[in-house]
Amino acid sequence: MIHAPTRAVATEVIAPTPVLLTPGPLTTAPSVRQAALTDWGSWDSDFNRVTSQVTAALLHAAGAEPTDRLACVPLQGSGTFAVEAAVRTFVSRDAGLVVGVNGAYGERLARLAAMAGRRVHVVEHAWNQPVSPERLVAALASQRGFTHVAVVHCETSTGLLNDLPAIAEAVGAAGGRLIVDAMSTFGALDVLASHPAVQAVVAASGKCLEGLPGVGFVLCPERALHEAAGQCDSLSLDLADQHAYLQRTGQWRFTPPTHLVAALAAALVEYGRAGGRVSRLARYQANSAALASAAAQLGLVSYLPPALQAPIIHTFYAPSGPGWSFNYFYELVKQRGFILYPGKLTLEETFRVGCIGQVTPQTMRQAVRAIGQALQAMGLLPLEAAGGPA
Amino acid sequence: MIHAPTRAVATEVIAPTPVLLTPGPLTTAPSVRQAALTDWGSWDSDFNRVTSQVTAALLHAAGAEPTDRLACVPLQGSGTFAVEAAVRTFVSRDAGLVVGVNGAYGERLARLAAMAGRRVHVVEHAWNQPVSPERLVAALASQRGFTHVAVVHCETSTGLLNDLPAIAEAVGAAGGRLIVDAMSTFGALDVLASHPAVQAVVAASGKCLEGLPGVGFVLCPERALHEAAGQCDSLSLDLADQHAYLQRTGQWRFTPPTHLVAALAAALVEYGRAGGRVSRLARYQANSAALASAAAQLGLVSYLPPALQAPIIHTFYAPSGPGWSFNYFYELVKQRGFILYPGKLTLEETFRVGCIGQVTPQTMRQAVRAIGQALQAMGLLPLEAAGGPA
Repeated sequence: MIHAPTRAVATEVIAPTPVLLTPGPLTTAPSVRQAALTDWGSWDSDFNRVTSQVTAALLHAAGAEPTDRLACVPLQGSGTFAVEAAVRTFVSRDAGLVVGVNGAYGERLARLAAMAGRRVHVVEHAWNQPVSPERLVAALASQRGFTHVAVVHCETSTGLLNDLPAIAEAVGAAGGRLIVDAMSTFGALDVLASHPAVQAVVAASGKCLEGLPGVGFVLCPERALHEAAGQCDSLSLDLADQHAYLQRTGQWRFTPPTHLVAALAAALVEYGRAGGRVSRLARYQANSAALASAAAQLGLVSYLPPALQAPIIHTFYAPSGPGWSFNYFYELVKQRGFILYPGKLTLEETFRVGCIGQVTPQTMRQAVRAIGQALQAMGLLPLEAAGGPA
Repeated sequence: MIHAPTRAVATEVIAPTPVLLTPGPLTTAPSVRQAALTDWGSWDSDFNRVTSQVTAALLHAAGAEPTDRLACVPLQGSGTFAVEAAVRTFVSRDAGLVVGVNGAYGERLARLAAMAGRRVHVVEHAWNQPVSPERLVAALASQRGFTHVAVVHCETSTGLLNDLPAIAEAVGAAGGRLIVDAMSTFGALDVLASHPAVQAVVAASGKCLEGLPGVGFVLCPERALHEAAGQCDSLSLDLADQHAYLQRTGQWRFTPPTHLVAALAAALVEYGRAGGRVSRLARYQANSAALASAAAQLGLVSYLPPALQAPIIHTFYAPSGPGWSFNYFYELVKQRGFILYPGKLTLEETFRVGCIGQVTPQTMRQAVRAIGQALQAMGLLPLEAAGGPA
């Protein structure tokens, strides 16, 4: 059994932190974490300014123009809380929604909508196939009283990028409204917040914006929030109420995670300074390319073809054979300073490597070197026996 | 108009932070904030250890013995999210609950239960009167199919301490199950987590435990969680599912606020080192006594009689007369380094001063001195004209 170096929690700051190649939480900038060192009064005007700075910067990051009349509603909790909030706020209790599923996060979306009592029609896809706009709108047309379609932009469970522009066009043409789980793309890819068919774009602080995890947010037309007033069946998750209160008072309805909001503000300042979405995407694309190239040289096989691969997280087949143990592999790579992610596929043995956060192409090459050393130590190199699509 | 000193958010740590006399967020120890400086992998075994260290320490803080077979279920979001989660997880959809209300948080509890579709019977009290155990059980007996009673331990909106032991005894004798919102008492007062009538004690990281805000938690019998499996109608707020997943994997179901969990772990280490609940209560009682005494010397009148006053937060009547403006008063006190809280009473003009967090009796006396200077500057001293019960 391998023991990881113990990290005390109590009073010391541990450095260097291993590099997180996990798609949120991820490796953040010191300036972002240091912004969490101030205690803020949640009622105070200084903190209200931080909140409004954050919501304005998030709208800006999404490319929203004032004439789009979009609102940004922050919400306490993880991204999933914000996705559930969007469903409960915008899909009325007697309506239904079509959910395009090609991964674990689509499945989760369908499950939370069903638990919320909404009628759900799942359009199931293989996990290495993009969600089909045609199948979504056919399902929407076939279901009486269905008003919404919901999809995950990048399926973090595999790294697959769904074709959001085509989906938004199709849903719009069919008269539907689209809820986009843009958790792992917001800030790097275009999430189409201002598209007329898009009613809600949901994301969170700890992904491509490189903040600390714990703050979700939803971008949506102001008008949609007004129309949804009184519709939500959860006080905590009521985006219309949260928005109305913020507008009236400048404050969150319930205690905000002040330190995380301040850290997100710092992350957004850093984001703007570094050149915004275009430059963040360019860095992630460079990371993704460096990862793909180094991994291929090592003999690792990608789960997805390049055309479907988002520059966010990659899934690799595990080496086949009896010598493989993900937990052992993980610990060996971690000892070399990198934290990977397990695969989410149920039938095939895989592992995942994120390429977002405060990392560079050099980091990705170092990580693949560590992966190679781990496989070597496990007696699994060379990788002629590497797995692949059956 | 008075401008507060601007505090930049971007990259600098601001010192000294004004002292927060707000009952969460509050003034935390530097060691707690510094524990938020590490990026943790949410899947990593090191972080799993932090989570299990936190849940064990929370059970210990509540005085739970292993033989009590209680579980501690952490939840992302503010305390209100955890209260809603307890209601949705434990009160079945066709059942109802009696809510004792004598302040804004009791009102919120009733509202979130009604929005969740549970039948709610509110037992309303004046805000300066404790919740009556007799009225609660009479209401429980009068309602068909009602299974639960819910109360707020300390009504943070006024500072009133409800008589939890008497309420738990009465509810238990009547065969009901009790949900306790112990948000502002957990860690300082006995929250009766092991009382046979108590099914859930709900609290959060950023109050008497002096962690950073953003993590809620619920203490409840393990058996109650097993019985509640499949009952919750919200994926995000399903405590039974959260607990089962944590038990099985050591991990949170959805991205945890890793930095806040690590900070809570540090806060709990500090809590234990400083002597646990008894010594925390002693400090808060000393703070409360120093505040009450200094405020009385200044001529301020307390909203509550001493017998009902929790050593958590005090409500004072604002000086009467045309010279009073809470916002102006607030800014003047803030300029002197202290952040106060507005009153929550709707009919009477009040303000609140918390006595929890990293503050001492000396801090409380300094705060009252600042309050006196502010009132002086407003031309409101001496306070012969101070308000009082009409």
